[in-house]
Amino acid sequence: MAKFPTLQDQLGDPIAGNGLLHRRFFLQSGAAIAGAAATLGTASAESIGTAAPEWTKKPGAAFNGYGVPSHWRDNIQRLVVTNAPPGREVAGSSRTPLEMMEGTITPGGLHYVRNHNGTPDVDPNKHELMIHGLVRQPLVFTLDNLLRYPMESRIHFVECAGNSGAISASAEPQQVRASTIHGLLSCSEWTGVKLSTLLEEAGLDKRGTWILAEGADSAAMSRSVPVWKALDDAMIALYQNGEPIRPEQGFPMRLLLPGFEGNTNVKWLRRMKVMDGPMYSRDETSRYTELMPDGKAREFMLQMEPKSLILKPSFGINMQGPGYYEISGLAWSGLGRVRRVDVSADGGKSWAEAALSAPVQTKALTRFRLPWMWNGQPAVLTSRTTDDKGVVQMSRAQWVAQYAPRQNFHFSAMQSWAVDAGGKVSNVYV
Amino acid sequence: MAKFPTLQDQLGDPIAGNGLLHRRFFLQSGAAIAGAAATLGTASAESIGTAAPEWTKKPGAAFNGYGVPSHWRDNIQRLVVTNAPPGREVAGSSRTPLEMMEGTITPGGLHYVRNHNGTPDVDPNKHELMIHGLVRQPLVFTLDNLLRYPMESRIHFVECAGNSGAISASAEPQQVRASTIHGLLSCSEWTGVKLSTLLEEAGLDKRGTWILAEGADSAAMSRSVPVWKALDDAMIALYQNGEPIRPEQGFPMRLLLPGFEGNTNVKWLRRMKVMDGPMYSRDETSRYTELMPDGKAREFMLQMEPKSLILKPSFGINMQGPGYYEISGLAWSGLGRVRRVDVSADGGKSWAEAALSAPVQTKALTRFRLPWMWNGQPAVLTSRTTDDKGVVQMSRAQWVAQYAPRQNFHFSAMQSWAVDAGGKVSNVYV
Repeated sequence: MAKFPTLQDQLGDPIAGNGLLHRRFFLQSGAAIAGAAATLGTASAESIGTAAPEWTKKPGAAFNGYGVPSHWRDNIQRLVVTNAPPGREVAGSSRTPLEMMEGTITPGGLHYVRNHNGTPDVDPNKHELMIHGLVRQPLVFTLDNLLRYPMESRIHFVECAGNSGAISASAEPQQVRASTIHGLLSCSEWTGVKLSTLLEEAGLDKRGTWILAEGADSAAMSRSVPVWKALDDAMIALYQNGEPIRPEQGFPMRLLLPGFEGNTNVKWLRRMKVMDGPMYSRDETSRYTELMPDGKAREFMLQMEPKSLILKPSFGINMQGPGYYEISGLAWSGLGRVRRVDVSADGGKSWAEAALSAPVQTKALTRFRLPWMWNGQPAVLTSRTTDDKGVVQMSRAQWVAQYAPRQNFHFSAMQSWAVDAGGKVSNVYV
Repeated sequence: MAKFPTLQDQLGDPIAGNGLLHRRFFLQSGAAIAGAAATLGTASAESIGTAAPEWTKKPGAAFNGYGVPSHWRDNIQRLVVTNAPPGREVAGSSRTPLEMMEGTITPGGLHYVRNHNGTPDVDPNKHELMIHGLVRQPLVFTLDNLLRYPMESRIHFVECAGNSGAISASAEPQQVRASTIHGLLSCSEWTGVKLSTLLEEAGLDKRGTWILAEGADSAAMSRSVPVWKALDDAMIALYQNGEPIRPEQGFPMRLLLPGFEGNTNVKWLRRMKVMDGPMYSRDETSRYTELMPDGKAREFMLQMEPKSLILKPSFGINMQGPGYYEISGLAWSGLGRVRRVDVSADGGKSWAEAALSAPVQTKALTRFRLPWMWNGQPAVLTSRTTDDKGVVQMSRAQWVAQYAPRQNFHFSAMQSWAVDAGGKVSNVYV
């Protein structure tokens, strides 16, 4: 059994309450505090070489064209959530199992999906993208056309406007895995054609201030996008993580609006109509607005605010006895780069700055990590991020106070997890 | 049909022979030169909205736990190559279809695989990693043990020592797709535990200069790794692109030695024995050495040299008539970061600097792009990279002259593609 040194055995003193250590603790101390390994006498060590496991004794599996994950990990699946009536299960979502994952990239198979009427089977040889409305000359692009244009590759997150809304909507904290609440969030390397390149070719009319983007799904999902964003970093994405974009993500092409709420990143993109104002389509009026205390609704709140989330530990990922742990999670901002993440183990009374995985990219998921010596006593873990615009993540109470009751779009406040003396982790509001 | 402006219609003059444009040409000119889109009268544009394709008229597919690529792209597969006798097809490789891909990340399903005796089915609950030999205390780690340690996430390529060897070994250029020759190359986000952390816990003896790394496959694949590398950026990788590392990549754990030849990144890692010199194992003496003209062999040439490769166009990816194209490809170096990539369209007589996708990361694939106005005349395309150590990619002739005939490990010289007047692309030696 692992023997854990006490804190005073170590070079590093805690820098915040309940045992949070400096983010460079491991580098500075060179201490072997993880301490989970079994030690062996030299004789035992040598004998292990002879006790070869069964799979070393026969040839392994042959090659194949397209690989799959380990069958030992076939529990790592997206969580399918549909509130739709029977027979309408094509409306709903599947969520990325964030707490079972690491790093920042989401593999295509685990990317979250939010569909309003299912994933269409679009024939790429028949699909066309039209740009029309207030332009000098309307244009129609096939996929082959678009593949001729200059491309860009960038890593960006996509997050549903309704992600984490359960924290706002539910009076009591739900005791469910992090991904059930926060799993409408994924991050990929996207490659495609800058939308500005195509708009320049079509010739934007000066009256054009908004663009209606419509998908080729049978919900005809459509959203209005401001021209400033279309001319900034918007992309017609054709590839995701190196391969052609998958059907669930919009094959053969989707609109990518880095940092904007997921719903505006229209999948199976069919047309973009330049207009002199927003369309007020069904998909931007029936949902995604923010109901205020005075009964009015704020509309077109399109940029996702800075946000962070501890995943290890989190509900269902319990502690295994006192000792050393790495606290790990994700931070992101639709406004720019994550500047810093602070972590508290005492419910926000004291904070320690976490280490960020480099390079920190704009509008991309950022992994943060912080060493923690857990003394076996109850603790409350929380993270709080600040982005490069200086915007700081709020507490739940601050966030909720801005809105009418149960307004649950664009929830970006802090998530807290309580650890009890037995190591069990639960969702709490602080 | 698309109408292509002549070069003199444009703001940008060619900056190198045969029509290569400045890498910022598109940004500077704002010109609509891709020109592949069809133009429409306004009436036609409006009518398209009514001609809705069939998939807009019925609900799409339901949600699922783990997604797959588009069936319209099921030709994007790894190329399986085994030279082994019948019944021994578990020895060989499968190659990443680079010319059908974009960006820099390789999805798990398309990561290249080089196996000596197949992919073992390792039970993660029984697998152990032992560190022994010249250490203060031998240690054994289960996967659960390792998950307690501090982790890092980094994007790195892995390239087989034999990648591209066909160019050296074949007297005539093979007329095959780029991936057939160069597809033993992939790039992922890896997350795991720094090897230095575990070695510090075991306590390195001062006599320890090399470490034998052995896999749990039935080839007992083993390689010697210098201690300096183990203490530098080596990692026990547990996750790949966010999910647990796949069986073909070493589930539940592999050694990751960024920039070192692929074979040393031992999969299904079972033990690391600290020694006072290299083991001279079968896998590092029967292969992976460099035979010199004097009949001696250079051994332990572990770092992959800077290299680049044009993929669009390349064999099988032909030109579609004169006009604007984006030349695109990959560059990388096992020594550090790619500093620059130069492209020639006249077989090396003149060069233009390509744009690099940001951020350029150390020991990672880097996408380069350059605009090209092809005038329909024969051309020879070549790329040449320089890394941040100042090492410049050689010509094939320079590279081959260093070695005995048919030495084909660590081939890192330039790849050239000839374009004929009909737009057909072929492999050529320049």
